[in-house]
Amino acid sequence: MKVVESVKNPKVKQWKKLLTRKERDKTGMFIVEGFHLVEEALKEQGQALEIMMSEDITLPTNWNVDNISITRLSREVAKAISDTENEQGIFAVCVQQQAEDKFEGTSFLLLDSVQDPGNLGTMIRTADAAGMDAVILGDGTVDPYNPKVIRSAQGSHFHLPIYRQNLNDTLTTLQQQGVKVYGTALENGVDYSTVTINEPFAIVVGNEGSGITKELLARTDQNLYIPIHGKSESLNVAVAAGILMYYGRIGK
Amino acid sequence: MKVVESVKNPKVKQWKKLLTRKERDKTGMFIVEGFHLVEEALKEQGQALEIMMSEDITLPTNWNVDNISITRLSREVAKAISDTENEQGIFAVCVQQQAEDKFEGTSFLLLDSVQDPGNLGTMIRTADAAGMDAVILGDGTVDPYNPKVIRSAQGSHFHLPIYRQNLNDTLTTLQQQGVKVYGTALENGVDYSTVTINEPFAIVVGNEGSGITKELLARTDQNLYIPIHGKSESLNVAVAAGILMYYGRIGK
Repeated sequence: MKVVESVKNPKVKQWKKLLTRKERDKTGMFIVEGFHLVEEALKEQGQALEIMMSEDITLPTNWNVDNISITRLSREVAKAISDTENEQGIFAVCVQQQAEDKFEGTSFLLLDSVQDPGNLGTMIRTADAAGMDAVILGDGTVDPYNPKVIRSAQGSHFHLPIYRQNLNDTLTTLQQQGVKVYGTALENGVDYSTVTINEPFAIVVGNEGSGITKELLARTDQNLYIPIHGKSESLNVAVAAGILMYYGRIGK
Repeated sequence: MKVVESVKNPKVKQWKKLLTRKERDKTGMFIVEGFHLVEEALKEQGQALEIMMSEDITLPTNWNVDNISITRLSREVAKAISDTENEQGIFAVCVQQQAEDKFEGTSFLLLDSVQDPGNLGTMIRTADAAGMDAVILGDGTVDPYNPKVIRSAQGSHFHLPIYRQNLNDTLTTLQQQGVKVYGTALENGVDYSTVTINEPFAIVVGNEGSGITKELLARTDQNLYIPIHGKSESLNVAVAAGILMYYGRIGK
């Protein structure tokens, strides 16, 4: 068994580079790590290009790794390419999804400048659970292939389309396709629970601090708010998105 | 102006100790930091015991700090007692809430062994927003006065009661008070959206990995699940709690 043992090996340097957004953007690739995420990647044809794993690891016998190159690593190299403190010693290089200018399906989540990787990952996971047909990330949103986003999403990157584009263009496309677009805003909005959300629909949520940009908010079909019954000033954006996406599912 | 300049000052040592759970449990106190949290603490009478702030800081003129001791700190000391990388140089020592054996109100969130500080903080914030009357934390749940929990909750610690006790006792008390207790579980549960939740009610959510303990689940009045429409295995616990708490508010 050949093992990549040196952190100076050119392949190791390349994997480490994929921990940076610059390199991910340039190559259109990203790395997932841990048994669960590698398994999720393997389930979707064409997602995983290569598996890297510590020499002491045995692959689960039910994994299908035909046609996938497997590279063995020393523990030192596994540590070097990991983004976590407790790495499991298994990784996969995967292909990023590409932007679309037409959207298939009847329910969409649009994110305008969401900054926190944990929030973004949780929203991708929730969109998957709620059966949304795509998540579309506007300019200024954190890179969905950031390792923290990937961890929070727990494999949902492989379950539904994730696109990145200017949301002004997205709104034009969706509205041309007859999709009703709901913004979220405290001002000039209506209590979400008084509205019946029918498909096809899209929900837009915004930045943790400043919400959705005014320009975009002016173009939505209707703006909703989630009432605050207590004394907190606002909801976490991932919780708010979860409440609205699941509300859109009730009775369907 | 007298300034605490040395990190070896006994008061500084005491504040630093409050970053540990052991000391917080022993003293029944905790520290909040940053302008927003200190302001929220000041709004609730008796919560803030003492304010510490860098010598270069000016207090907002609309803050009421009558009868509260204010200690000035050097920048070095401010850094030493902070739990964040970008500290704002302002802190307050506050009093923890104490356990109750009777609960006032008509809606309660019960947390069984929630581990992640961010999840706990987000649930306290959401419970506040949803107008819940108390959050009750069972044994094995992360310390609600952990600095990460406090940051995620964004001041909601000062807005609603947060109790800690054995949830078996809580269930006994609540059920004696006529409160209907809803557990959350994938097995033997019903789709939450087919149930009408009336007050008084309590919602129990469990550990991120293992859910609610079997013993507790057997004692609830009804168990609910949130359907997974896509391919993800589960929802983030804070998102799930948010969906259920707000569902309990619809139409009320």
